[in-house]
Amino acid sequence: MITRMSQLFLRTLREDPADAEVPSHKLLVRAGYIRRAAPGVYSWLPLGLRVLRKIESIVRAEMDSIGAQELLFPALLSKEPYETTGRWTEYGDNLFRLKDRRDVDMLLGPTHEEMFTSTVKDLYSSYKDFPVTLYQIQTKYRDEERPRAGILRGREFVMKDSYSFDMDDAGLEKSYQAHRAAYQRIFDSLSIDYAICEATSGAMGGSASEEFLAYSEVGEDTFVRSTTGDYAANVEAVETLRGEERPIEGLPAAEVHDTPQAETIAALVEWAKATGFDIDASQTLKTMAIMVHQPGEEEEELKAVLLPGDRELADKRLEAALAPTEFRLAEEKDFQKYPFLVRGYIGPRAMNAHGIEVLADPRIVTGTSWLAGADEEQRHVLNLVAGRDFTVDRYVEAAGIHEGDPAPDGGTLTLARGIELGHIFQLGRKYTEAFDVKILDENGKRTIPTMGSYGIGISRMMAVLVEQNHDDKGLIWPAAVAPYQVHVAVANKDEAAVAAGDELVAALDARGIEVLFDDRPKVSPGVRFKDAELLGMPYAVILGRAFADGEVELCERGGETSEVPYDEIVDRLVGLLG
Amino acid sequence: MITRMSQLFLRTLREDPADAEVPSHKLLVRAGYIRRAAPGVYSWLPLGLRVLRKIESIVRAEMDSIGAQELLFPALLSKEPYETTGRWTEYGDNLFRLKDRRDVDMLLGPTHEEMFTSTVKDLYSSYKDFPVTLYQIQTKYRDEERPRAGILRGREFVMKDSYSFDMDDAGLEKSYQAHRAAYQRIFDSLSIDYAICEATSGAMGGSASEEFLAYSEVGEDTFVRSTTGDYAANVEAVETLRGEERPIEGLPAAEVHDTPQAETIAALVEWAKATGFDIDASQTLKTMAIMVHQPGEEEEELKAVLLPGDRELADKRLEAALAPTEFRLAEEKDFQKYPFLVRGYIGPRAMNAHGIEVLADPRIVTGTSWLAGADEEQRHVLNLVAGRDFTVDRYVEAAGIHEGDPAPDGGTLTLARGIELGHIFQLGRKYTEAFDVKILDENGKRTIPTMGSYGIGISRMMAVLVEQNHDDKGLIWPAAVAPYQVHVAVANKDEAAVAAGDELVAALDARGIEVLFDDRPKVSPGVRFKDAELLGMPYAVILGRAFADGEVELCERGGETSEVPYDEIVDRLVGLLG
Repeated sequence: MITRMSQLFLRTLREDPADAEVPSHKLLVRAGYIRRAAPGVYSWLPLGLRVLRKIESIVRAEMDSIGAQELLFPALLSKEPYETTGRWTEYGDNLFRLKDRRDVDMLLGPTHEEMFTSTVKDLYSSYKDFPVTLYQIQTKYRDEERPRAGILRGREFVMKDSYSFDMDDAGLEKSYQAHRAAYQRIFDSLSIDYAICEATSGAMGGSASEEFLAYSEVGEDTFVRSTTGDYAANVEAVETLRGEERPIEGLPAAEVHDTPQAETIAALVEWAKATGFDIDASQTLKTMAIMVHQPGEEEEELKAVLLPGDRELADKRLEAALAPTEFRLAEEKDFQKYPFLVRGYIGPRAMNAHGIEVLADPRIVTGTSWLAGADEEQRHVLNLVAGRDFTVDRYVEAAGIHEGDPAPDGGTLTLARGIELGHIFQLGRKYTEAFDVKILDENGKRTIPTMGSYGIGISRMMAVLVEQNHDDKGLIWPAAVAPYQVHVAVANKDEAAVAAGDELVAALDARGIEVLFDDRPKVSPGVRFKDAELLGMPYAVILGRAFADGEVELCERGGETSEVPYDEIVDRLVGLLG
Repeated sequence: MITRMSQLFLRTLREDPADAEVPSHKLLVRAGYIRRAAPGVYSWLPLGLRVLRKIESIVRAEMDSIGAQELLFPALLSKEPYETTGRWTEYGDNLFRLKDRRDVDMLLGPTHEEMFTSTVKDLYSSYKDFPVTLYQIQTKYRDEERPRAGILRGREFVMKDSYSFDMDDAGLEKSYQAHRAAYQRIFDSLSIDYAICEATSGAMGGSASEEFLAYSEVGEDTFVRSTTGDYAANVEAVETLRGEERPIEGLPAAEVHDTPQAETIAALVEWAKATGFDIDASQTLKTMAIMVHQPGEEEEELKAVLLPGDRELADKRLEAALAPTEFRLAEEKDFQKYPFLVRGYIGPRAMNAHGIEVLADPRIVTGTSWLAGADEEQRHVLNLVAGRDFTVDRYVEAAGIHEGDPAPDGGTLTLARGIELGHIFQLGRKYTEAFDVKILDENGKRTIPTMGSYGIGISRMMAVLVEQNHDDKGLIWPAAVAPYQVHVAVANKDEAAVAAGDELVAALDARGIEVLFDDRPKVSPGVRFKDAELLGMPYAVILGRAFADGEVELCERGGETSEVPYDEIVDRLVGLLG
């Protein structure tokens, strides 16, 4: 097909949009692919829609190849199924809720486990119907607190979500691995640079879970890799190596010291050094008061979090560890309510004494000895031993990961930033149990099938492709998703050149190549070059001055420019586009 | 492609769903094409989604062929553009409104004039950019008061909407005609039986407007055709032939009569006959009190509607005539508020006397004489002459159309029922003016372009196809939109027949035919036949008993069944599917 730029609904911009911070947002708007309609909500202009559809087709083909069946659920949904699973409440402010004209509660689907599960329950009843994998490519809605970066994190976005239903765990593992392989084929086919990271399940509940994270400086997800192997995990999922338990016997007794003005770890270490103790931050104990809130509950509850003093609290890790329970740091009003919390000098003993649950970093094990708050103004206590002087109720992953931390595979962790492209997840029976899906197995016994849930951010993938494929001049599309494979521009007023341009686009079209033809009248060669670079088709052919000698310029976007005889250009392009 | 029913996510039902009244709703649910998710909201199961996508492709191809460019707007929209045009309010309860987490008003797009217009304004500024026609195939939302009939009138539905922008009226006419022809090609290609009806613009504002109405007994739209020509119009758009004005001089004076118990037209005619007056219902006058409500206004206002007594009030016609103002019949509380309204005996004179606006049917012209309410209990007035004894303030189309009424082209009107498939509409400058779209014309003058708006109900078209193509056994799909063109079933346990079935589907697939293969184990021939009929592929091939003689059954769905030699069946089908 041939699209003529003289007709195309397109305006390129020379300036970055004021609200754009990341390259994909800037370039997709400047190149006229997308346009902001509301905060976190974008319109797809013709070029953008073509890319989106091509990404969808690639994903669809791979889903079909693993036997997944496509269907399409509505975006506008009833509250009831989401109440059945508790997500009507759990989703909190992220859910777009609305009422219809009869004052009935409805929602815009953020994800569709409920619909898939209840539909399978309605249609299927025998083990003979299983396994079954269903998917949809659909517009989803999440009322993100901070929609950002154009289509990287929008409030209306396109997702492929699929769900597998198996009669047993072995089947689930197989479905999971089939998706994992399909996702790899999808991302590999577009040469996306990504890592497969162990992930926590977040608010979804369930067991095995991996994220496909595309490397990107502008990514919101920090993840870790091991220096010695394949281990990769998102920060929420990294498991801290548990400290080694030590015998308590023989450890020196706890002793309280005056530590004036030592309300920070740095000041405390300073005090220790000045006082002659050989103690660094990792041997001090940070005791933090947090208020936790369970969805659906009215009251908040006080809990303690213990960290080695050299670690900051990693909000997202603690969030993931506590989900769906939410937390916040204690504030002035909380300190007033609980006078045993001595600000700046909180220690674990007062928490134990008042029956407050103590959550601790896995390094704080029995027999480890700490310099901790003494629960008295201006005082700390030395040699406070876990398991002797205070008790840990539960271990949680709440501490920040540092570059150089030990990796579970024996290597060392390095940190990277990424964008979540996909997520595969052994959901288990959470949803099938909630909907009481009972299937007769081979022995006539009613069995609850087990589910996997698998998602790819289709619109986000477009942003990722731009983040990984652009330069300061514009977009650089992989041929498989480019709106057009070849951009042809005549930058020569000679009649023969103009005629040759027409002939060339017709010849390319005849060979099945999609062509964007810059046939705009009265546009300078400079503007044509600039637009070709901004729009980012993988190959541009310029009929310029050299056309007089029978040569055209072939510009590989982001690569080499060469002169090619006009007579050979079609074959050359067909060869390149393979 | 081959889809095996043993794998397909499908359950057919023998019983009609309890809430279904019309054939398309019953059959699409029973055949497992769609499934109700919420009132007026449906899920598309695999077979249904395939039909939907095929309809989309047909529409897309025709839109592309007239140079329309596809883009895609969000469904979740900001209030502001809809406030600019007043539709935030005008849409009333039909609009799904919601608030985001920051309490910002948003809506789910019921139609996208606002988005298209403001986008064109942002991108284009010169006459050289025009004309331009843009379209999208998108999910739309309307909170219908009475969602009904499955996907015939849903609250979430798929629509193709396009918009043309032209610099002048001649251009608009051209864009309009291009759409008109494209729509005809679309509906003709699927052999839909439809009429192109003159339409009113409804709440949209604007001038020329036609609806494509598919003939259907279950249609909600009543429309008329003339017995002598091409004239067709929806009932809202039929213009009543205006009565002939007559001289007032010499007409007998009005006289009040006691008409006990004559609170209905029938009773009044009865009284007249008994009293010796030669008066039929068409000579009596119905004076109705209505309360009208302008969107955005707090108060309702009383108005009178006059109709000849043989005509019922046609709600939809009056609705269209008054839009966007809404009306309701006066109720008890209104009669209490306006004591001059004497229930059962209301006449136009009290309305005139109290300054109430009088809207009248076009037959009630100066010089016509009526038997009307006397505004006194148990009394009517004879010889009440329009223009002498009472005044009409405004003529409106409010009376029902009757079979046999005169048509504007000189013929006679007949009534038919239909389903609105498409609507084309010369919008004019309503939206471009609202958004202050100013384009420099050839003379450098700022000109407001004129718009056309064109819609096709994609999901509704699927229901229409079923309404026009089914029998009591099931669906009958046109080949162009059938999920699969051929249904193959082996109803013979012989190994050779089973092997031949596998061979046949492979051979059809190799010829580019999409095949649904009933390979389900342990299903009786009867169930296979029934399902093949219910699912409605245009052709079914049954390898049954006659296979022993080298023959298979070729069943044209809704047509003939014949025996065809197995060796010839592939070529025969290729020929039939042309």
